[in-house]
Amino acid sequence: MQQERCSSSDRPLDPGCLQARDAERSADRPACAPVDFPVAVVLPAGGSGERVGLPTPKQFCTIFNRPLISYTIQAFERLPWIGTVVVVVSKENHDLMLNIVQKFNHTKVNVVHGGTTRHRSIFNGLQAFCSTSNSLTPKPKVVIIHDAVRPFVEEDLLLKITLAAKEQGASGAIRPLVSTIIATSSEGYLDHSLERAKYRASEMPQGFLYDIIFQAYQRCSEFDFEFGSECLHLALQYCGVNAKLIEGPPTLWKVTYKRDLAAAEAIIKETLSRSACIIAGAEAEAAELAKTLQKNLNMMETDVIPCAKESNAEYLSKTQNFIHLSTTGSNFLGVLEMVKHFEDTDHTRLYPVVIVWVQLNMTKQSVDSQKTDELAAFRSLASEVIQGNVLLYGIQIEHTKVPEQWERSVERLTQITVALIRDRNAALTGQLLHV
Amino acid sequence: MQQERCSSSDRPLDPGCLQARDAERSADRPACAPVDFPVAVVLPAGGSGERVGLPTPKQFCTIFNRPLISYTIQAFERLPWIGTVVVVVSKENHDLMLNIVQKFNHTKVNVVHGGTTRHRSIFNGLQAFCSTSNSLTPKPKVVIIHDAVRPFVEEDLLLKITLAAKEQGASGAIRPLVSTIIATSSEGYLDHSLERAKYRASEMPQGFLYDIIFQAYQRCSEFDFEFGSECLHLALQYCGVNAKLIEGPPTLWKVTYKRDLAAAEAIIKETLSRSACIIAGAEAEAAELAKTLQKNLNMMETDVIPCAKESNAEYLSKTQNFIHLSTTGSNFLGVLEMVKHFEDTDHTRLYPVVIVWVQLNMTKQSVDSQKTDELAAFRSLASEVIQGNVLLYGIQIEHTKVPEQWERSVERLTQITVALIRDRNAALTGQLLHV
Repeated sequence: MQQERCSSSDRPLDPGCLQARDAERSADRPACAPVDFPVAVVLPAGGSGERVGLPTPKQFCTIFNRPLISYTIQAFERLPWIGTVVVVVSKENHDLMLNIVQKFNHTKVNVVHGGTTRHRSIFNGLQAFCSTSNSLTPKPKVVIIHDAVRPFVEEDLLLKITLAAKEQGASGAIRPLVSTIIATSSEGYLDHSLERAKYRASEMPQGFLYDIIFQAYQRCSEFDFEFGSECLHLALQYCGVNAKLIEGPPTLWKVTYKRDLAAAEAIIKETLSRSACIIAGAEAEAAELAKTLQKNLNMMETDVIPCAKESNAEYLSKTQNFIHLSTTGSNFLGVLEMVKHFEDTDHTRLYPVVIVWVQLNMTKQSVDSQKTDELAAFRSLASEVIQGNVLLYGIQIEHTKVPEQWERSVERLTQITVALIRDRNAALTGQLLHV
Repeated sequence: MQQERCSSSDRPLDPGCLQARDAERSADRPACAPVDFPVAVVLPAGGSGERVGLPTPKQFCTIFNRPLISYTIQAFERLPWIGTVVVVVSKENHDLMLNIVQKFNHTKVNVVHGGTTRHRSIFNGLQAFCSTSNSLTPKPKVVIIHDAVRPFVEEDLLLKITLAAKEQGASGAIRPLVSTIIATSSEGYLDHSLERAKYRASEMPQGFLYDIIFQAYQRCSEFDFEFGSECLHLALQYCGVNAKLIEGPPTLWKVTYKRDLAAAEAIIKETLSRSACIIAGAEAEAAELAKTLQKNLNMMETDVIPCAKESNAEYLSKTQNFIHLSTTGSNFLGVLEMVKHFEDTDHTRLYPVVIVWVQLNMTKQSVDSQKTDELAAFRSLASEVIQGNVLLYGIQIEHTKVPEQWERSVERLTQITVALIRDRNAALTGQLLHV
C-alpha cells in the first residue's frame, strides 16, 4: 500500500483561491512555458446529485453563497494557458448557470446543453468547438475533461495531464485504492478479491488530443453512450490509445455525498484562514497590541500596517482577513475605507472578507457607558457591508496595566478572533463581543 | 451505476449518539431477538494515520474533545446484544487508550497490544478470547471486525452482518464503486478498465464465526500477515468460506484524510442539532416568545417546558440543546439547576450540551444600564460550566409591541440561536449577543 508522508497531503496547495493577479504571476513561471498550444476544458455538469441527499444538484450547492461549480471553473480560469471552459448543463439549469457565470464574472465560460447521459454531454461539449462560426471556442489541440464537483484541481497536475495528453494522445489522473475491490457472485457472495497493488482508481482530470477523443465519440456505439463510464476506455477501444496515467493528490476526490460538501467547506475555510492583516492605527497601545496579536497568531501569516489607506493596497489585496484595531470608540471610518477599497478592486467577488473590529477601551468605564445606539450603528454597518460579501464582527477589550491580566485578555482576544475568521459565520456579524 | 434516492443517505440514522437509556430501550425491540448467542468485537486501532496529515493517529483525533475511537466504541457499546469490545492498540498508545476508556466510561472495552501489521493486530485481538483465565472476554460465537475510524456504524447493519456470519461463517459490508477501477501496465499506462457493475468496494464491518476466523489466522502464512489486506480473503483461502456480502450505507466510509475529520464533525454536529428544549419560564411574554421560537425552529424537534426542575427530567435528558428564556436580568438560577441536573445524570459525558440563555428585556433602557459586572458574572459562569462540557451563550432581545419589528427580532434570534447550536464553538461561550 502506498504511503503518503506529506503533512499537508489533504490540503490543496492552491485550491482555486488565487486572485487574477496570482494567475498573471504564474505566467512567468517556467513550468508554463511548454504549453504553447491551445488548451480547452469540457466540464460536464448535468448530474442530478441524487447521492448528495439534497434537492439541489451537488454542483450547484453553495459554499459561502457560491456554487461549487464556480470554484471548479475558477480553478481553470485563473490559468492563463487555459482557453475556453465549456460547461455542459441540462436545459433546466441553463439560466441558473448563466447567472452564475455573470455573478462570479467567469470570462472564459461557454455554456452548452447536455445530453441524457454523461457521455452524450461530453460529446455535446466537444462539438461546441466544431462550429467554425463560434469564434469564442476555437478548436483546441488538447482538451481537458473534468468533473464540476472536483473543485480543488491544481495547476501542477493540470500541466502534467496536458503535456502527457499532447504526447501520448490521452492521459488520466489516478489514485491508489482506499478499499479492497472484490468480485461478487450473482448470489451476493464473495467470489475473489483483487490484488490491490495492481489496480488504481481512475479519477479526473483526463486529457486528450482533441482529434482523438472526438473521433472516439464519433465511432462509439449507442451502448457506450448509454452505459459507458470512462473516456479513457473509449480512447483505447476506438483509437487504440493507451492513456498515460498520472498519480494525483487526495484533494482530487469527487464531492459525492452531503458530507463531502462539509469537507470541501472545511478545506476552503482553512485555506482562507492562512493569512491576516492587522491594521494597528496610530496609538502606542494599539501598536503594542498589534505586535502581541501577531505573535499569538503564529499559525497565520500576518502583516501589520498602520492604516487601510490606498497606499497599503498591496496588503489589502493579499488576504481575506483583517483585524482592525481602534482606540477611538465607535469611529468606523477605517472600516468604511477598507470596504470602499474592496468594492473598487472587486476583492470580495469570489470569497467573503472578514473584518474583526477590535475596540481597545482605555478607561474602565467604557463598557458601562456603551450606548444602545453605538451597538445599533455597528450592527447597521455590518448588515450593510455583508451585502458586499464583507463579514464584520466586533470585539471589545479593556486595557489594563496588570501584566498577567492583560496577557490573559489578549490570549482570549486571539482565540475569539481565530474562531471568527475560521468560521466566517454570517449569523454572528454585527455582534460586539467582549474579551 | 447504482442510484441512491434516499434523501438522507449521507446521514446515519443513529450515529452512536444515543445515550445508555436508548440502548436499554432497544433491547425490547424484536429486531434484537435473533441474537441469542455471544457476540464480540475486535477493533484494530494500531494505525499511525499518516494519510490524515496530522501528527496524531486519526483514531485519536478529537471531535468535541473526544477521540474518534470513542465514538466508534460507543456505536457498539450501546447495543445490549454486543459483549466485549477488544481494542487493539500499539504499545505506545496503551496508556492513552486506557485514559479514553476511563474518561468516557467505556465499560465493555478490553485493551490489548497490537502487532506490527493490521493482520497481526487482529490476530492478537482474537487471541484475547482464548485465555480461559480472562473472564472479561469469554469466547464469542460471532466476532465482528471493524475499523476504529468508521464511527457511524448502525445497529441495523451490525445485525445483518452478525446473523449472516452465524449462518454462513463470514460476512462483510460492501459499497458500490465510486470510481472506475483500472489495471495499469508496469510503465504507467492504461491496460484495461474493469466493468464497474461486477465489482464492489469491500468495507467494514465484517463478521465471522469465531472458530472460522481464528482457524484462518492460525493457518495463514507470514506473507499474509505481512501484506494481506482482507480478512474475508483469509476465510475463503484457508477455511473455504465464501462470505455473504451485504450492502451498507455511505456513512460506512473510513476516515482516511484530514477532510474526512471535518466531514465526521459535520455529521455529528448535524445529528446533535436535530432537537432542542425551550425553557419558557412563568412570564406571559416569555411563553409567547417560546411559542414563536418553536414555530421558527421548524427544522428541529422542539419541546417547550416551563422550568428546568427535576420534574422535567425526561425533557432534559432528551436533547443536547436548551434555549432558556428569562425576563429577570442576570438571574442565572435556572442555568445552574440545569447544569446540576446534567452532572447528576452524566448527560454531558459523551456530547457537549448547549445552553442559549435568552434575556428578554422588557424596558428600553435595559442595555444601557447593563453593568460590566453582569457581563463578568455571565462570563465567569460560562467558563465554569464549560468544565462540565456545557457551552453557555447569551442573547439579549428587546421586547417591542411593534409587530413587524418584533417579528424581525425573533427571526434574528432564531438565526443566531441556530448558528450557536450548530457550531458549538467553545471560543464564543460566555458572550452576550444582541438581536
